[in-house]
Amino acid sequence: MEFFEAVEKRYSHKEGFLPKPIPKEDLDLIAKAGLAAPSGSNSQCVKLVILQGREEIQPLCDIRPTFGLETAHAVIAVLTDGNAYPGDLNFEIEDYSAATTQMLLAVTALGYSALWLDSPYFGEKEQKAALKLLNAPANHHLRVVLPIGHPDGPGSRRPKLPFNQRVSYHQM
Amino acid sequence: MEFFEAVEKRYSHKEGFLPKPIPKEDLDLIAKAGLAAPSGSNSQCVKLVILQGREEIQPLCDIRPTFGLETAHAVIAVLTDGNAYPGDLNFEIEDYSAATTQMLLAVTALGYSALWLDSPYFGEKEQKAALKLLNAPANHHLRVVLPIGHPDGPGSRRPKLPFNQRVSYHQM
Repeated sequence: MEFFEAVEKRYSHKEGFLPKPIPKEDLDLIAKAGLAAPSGSNSQCVKLVILQGREEIQPLCDIRPTFGLETAHAVIAVLTDGNAYPGDLNFEIEDYSAATTQMLLAVTALGYSALWLDSPYFGEKEQKAALKLLNAPANHHLRVVLPIGHPDGPGSRRPKLPFNQRVSYHQM
Repeated sequence: MEFFEAVEKRYSHKEGFLPKPIPKEDLDLIAKAGLAAPSGSNSQCVKLVILQGREEIQPLCDIRPTFGLETAHAVIAVLTDGNAYPGDLNFEIEDYSAATTQMLLAVTALGYSALWLDSPYFGEKEQKAALKLLNAPANHHLRVVLPIGHPDGPGSRRPKLPFNQRVSYHQM
């Protein structure tokens, strides 16, 4: 798909997914797009764990049942290595956001839909349980999970402010 | 340009730019790609100020001379509205990172190069001076500036870790 078409078509799919698997080749492509994202000081602190099929996804969903996770047949969990930035400057949030953004566009370019889902893991209990399930080291942070799939409908879009309310030339 | 080609070709251009302008239509397209990025709770807290030509860019460069800014003929300043998230959850960093990531890909898709440049504005003095120059409200944060241009050479790339050191299936 052409780049600007993918940008225009991407949206947050908050509805359900059809019970159809996603080929591993496509999940690999999506993950590669994430890894190619900008990373502060080239830290490459972002790590991905990919879950396929309901059997693998249900235990994550059980930690805190959430729309998207309940019907997805593929999930990419986006983690950051908490030791990747030893100094004062820490770009873990920038890095996982950049990687997630590129993966959401890749999902769209391949004809699927997805959702940036972070809130279920903000709680300490849920975070610990999810890290354990994914066998991630305790110094890692689970930042986002992306339920990915064939959407069960067109999905809704929220309205966007007009261009000239957010962009100006020379000065605000 | 095809989406995955743009992902593969994007890099951080840390060298100079040729003294050639960028048409406003292309800057509009790049800005639109940024505005279309995911935004927490649809806050749309990201605002952009676009500078064109050395006369507009030099005062920003003078605040703290930095490679990229010294030769660029277009710059997009990426700001966030500090009042956009009134509650406990704040996604300003995620939002500007997502918008910046989409703009860097758009830059690449249009055949230009750019750089994610944040460090010159970490200092309080530089931050204040830049906000004043851009006529931005005091509750805004200047997050990143993107010098954009026709690269003066192929630019360097840093090595990336192999796929299987950052991606795993089922568990880490």
